[in-house]
Amino acid sequence: MSKSKNLYKRIAQLRANRTQQKYKHGGGVLGLFESKDSLIDHYGKKLEDIEEDVRLKQAEASLIAEEARAAFVFFKSRYAAATAFHLQPSVNPTQWITEPAPQPHDVYWPFFSESFMKQWISKLVVIVVCILFTILFLIPVVIVQGLTNLKQLEVLFPFLKSILAVKFVTQVITGYLPSLILQMSLKLVPPVMGFLSSIQGYISHSDIEMSASKKVQWFTVWNVFFATVFSGSVFHQVYIILDLKEITGQLAVAVPAQASFFITYVATTGWTSVSSELFQIIPLIVSLIKTPFTKQESEFEAPSMAYHRDLPRILFFGLLGISYFFLAPLILPFLLVYLCLAYIIYRNQFINVYTAKYETGGRFWPIVHDSMIFSLVLMQLIAVGSFALKKLSPASTWTLPLPVLTLTFNYYCRRRFLPIFTAYSAESLITKDREDENDSAMTEFYRQLLSVYKDPALFPIQHSSSSDSLVSPLLS
Amino acid sequence: MSKSKNLYKRIAQLRANRTQQKYKHGGGVLGLFESKDSLIDHYGKKLEDIEEDVRLKQAEASLIAEEARAAFVFFKSRYAAATAFHLQPSVNPTQWITEPAPQPHDVYWPFFSESFMKQWISKLVVIVVCILFTILFLIPVVIVQGLTNLKQLEVLFPFLKSILAVKFVTQVITGYLPSLILQMSLKLVPPVMGFLSSIQGYISHSDIEMSASKKVQWFTVWNVFFATVFSGSVFHQVYIILDLKEITGQLAVAVPAQASFFITYVATTGWTSVSSELFQIIPLIVSLIKTPFTKQESEFEAPSMAYHRDLPRILFFGLLGISYFFLAPLILPFLLVYLCLAYIIYRNQFINVYTAKYETGGRFWPIVHDSMIFSLVLMQLIAVGSFALKKLSPASTWTLPLPVLTLTFNYYCRRRFLPIFTAYSAESLITKDREDENDSAMTEFYRQLLSVYKDPALFPIQHSSSSDSLVSPLLS
Repeated sequence: MSKSKNLYKRIAQLRANRTQQKYKHGGGVLGLFESKDSLIDHYGKKLEDIEEDVRLKQAEASLIAEEARAAFVFFKSRYAAATAFHLQPSVNPTQWITEPAPQPHDVYWPFFSESFMKQWISKLVVIVVCILFTILFLIPVVIVQGLTNLKQLEVLFPFLKSILAVKFVTQVITGYLPSLILQMSLKLVPPVMGFLSSIQGYISHSDIEMSASKKVQWFTVWNVFFATVFSGSVFHQVYIILDLKEITGQLAVAVPAQASFFITYVATTGWTSVSSELFQIIPLIVSLIKTPFTKQESEFEAPSMAYHRDLPRILFFGLLGISYFFLAPLILPFLLVYLCLAYIIYRNQFINVYTAKYETGGRFWPIVHDSMIFSLVLMQLIAVGSFALKKLSPASTWTLPLPVLTLTFNYYCRRRFLPIFTAYSAESLITKDREDENDSAMTEFYRQLLSVYKDPALFPIQHSSSSDSLVSPLLS
Repeated sequence: MSKSKNLYKRIAQLRANRTQQKYKHGGGVLGLFESKDSLIDHYGKKLEDIEEDVRLKQAEASLIAEEARAAFVFFKSRYAAATAFHLQPSVNPTQWITEPAPQPHDVYWPFFSESFMKQWISKLVVIVVCILFTILFLIPVVIVQGLTNLKQLEVLFPFLKSILAVKFVTQVITGYLPSLILQMSLKLVPPVMGFLSSIQGYISHSDIEMSASKKVQWFTVWNVFFATVFSGSVFHQVYIILDLKEITGQLAVAVPAQASFFITYVATTGWTSVSSELFQIIPLIVSLIKTPFTKQESEFEAPSMAYHRDLPRILFFGLLGISYFFLAPLILPFLLVYLCLAYIIYRNQFINVYTAKYETGGRFWPIVHDSMIFSLVLMQLIAVGSFALKKLSPASTWTLPLPVLTLTFNYYCRRRFLPIFTAYSAESLITKDREDENDSAMTEFYRQLLSVYKDPALFPIQHSSSSDSLVSPLLS
């Protein structure tokens, strides 16, 4: 499928090239044209062969005799569909599994008809890979930390001593370079996590993006926050984290020490990321490179928000604000500027730039909620440690119930409000169903249903003929 | 309500006493009879007054104008009921809460019409009380531990030295007494936990018993297993448990040291508990004391299994077997005897002695599953620690994936099989519904439905008149 598409693109490009040259020069070396023509013919034949193969395979897949592994089932009303989704269908719980269907454009086909077991194993493998990736990523973090502790760097590379003596260089290296390097290597994380989530067995793009958001978020918390905080003892940090009775004390010592780094981080990463969001520099560069080669205006698609790239970043600034506001209040004005900028810019982007790829239905909100609860508990633990460190043991003791209360509140919210994010209520479903009954557009809707959930791999392909008909007027 | 019942019982007892005396002596001091008769009259009047009050209150409650806080809703089919249970009914998730109704005899009325918030707060309070109770219970455990370490006892009470020199006394004290004392104080735990669960906001006896089972089980694991294992440093144990990097090493040192105690525990507590189950000593004594005072044979009810008393005990022996089989294989024959005895005796009890108070529907099985998974992980952690202690670091490293795999298996089971324990499948519900359609007994069933779910507090009471009619022939 994708092979035939690539071939088609190549032929189209060759043809475009040729027509361009024709217009520019009005003639040219005939030999070159002949060789290009023969090349086009050669590729055209190859493309036709491939398409023939694909058509045969598609026919085979459509006529398949054995039972389908997965299928969409349509119901006459939303209420009936919800009932089928909520009730376990068969006595044997492993025989049938029901889940609500994603929107037509949201379906991610590669895992659609995979068995539960294969999806499950993919998930386990991806989790292991994720953990390994997170651990390996410590290397750039260690390098960054080497830059903030200049003395370590001088010991490792003595020849740098003379350069580091210049005050300006030192300021740039300690103040700006660390967060720049960290930021550059962090740019890699969302695509990698997005790819990992896409092979994890989800059947919709929205689920993939939600899972990737969670991965990126925990990755950021672990590899940016904790790895930076426990910088002096990077290789011992795992033991420090596991030592529960010492953790508040360790946090109280380590977290305030990195306040200046995180204030710089907000100013550099925060402000630049939100500004670059406005300028869309990478899409601009990509489009500048692409435009000369592709002539078809119709290929332009309005971009959609990459939640797994932006959401964890914004949440991380929330975490920084909550955990540093009482240790280093200087972070607050920087964060305020960031949040105001972000509000204005994202508002503009949502209204004027991005289109919605799918209805999220508010399902990303629990991620935000969880992140806030985690930030609060972390802040309270740091507070307990700080009070103990300053020998204010009554204050320390009386702060201890706070994380317990926060977690209780979290549990209460999960119990009472989380169900809204997994399914619609019977009341709203029945209201919608009744509205539909009187709607004249429903017959058209039912007609469309038959074709809208179709695996794109089974669509008829006609690149070879259609492209001919498109370009032929220019050639004749 | 209960007040009128108590009064009724007292009057019935006085009457029974009097008739007994009549038969025995054929006469007696007249004055005594007169005073007893007047006493009965006095109580009878009091009872009638109370019953009148109760009837007024009941009428008030039945005619209540405001909305009911909680209600039973009947559906024509099981499938419709299941749909209503699974779908969140209103848009606001806090407005309506649906849960499947318990069986009529299983309803626990005191919390039936309490608000979610009150049930929630009760739950939190009970959890806090439970934790406090668990911590306070360490005191008998410390005493028991003092007995197993005789040297500590000699230091505390020097006058015991001469008695402890006798070998027989030492054997009894170290071998038998500790587990006896522990066992006696553990007898208190199931009733206490049962009481705590009953004020936790559950609306059915089965939920209360399930919750109590969990409480007793974790209580036993914590206060019998861990408190005994970390005996040498009882007051530091919390810190040892919290120190995750040290925990496997600490377990590997402390667990094998208590092997002999737990082997004795199996022989004493295990064997005696299962035998006393057969002889039903406590019910026998209670009945022996009661019989002379109550003449009515009809009051005897077949007892039902107290799951929260027996289930955690059996699971605890499972935990002991799994965690000690490779450290002290001598425990296995003792456990085998226990399990064979338990199989034979409980089989007999279930067939011949106990009646089922409610249908459990297999809902106690997840407790067993969780306990087994916990035991396996604990065993594997002890193994990791033991191998490390014996400087077999490759063995230690290669055992580490085992707990991870066990927990993965647990997660898989929870995802795939746990839903069976919360709700029935659509297939089974529809099959049952179709069977009911052709059943002629259904009209009778619907008729009974109207009265079967009625708060016993609203039943008409007629102790005063009915008791009169029962006893009057003997008096005339």
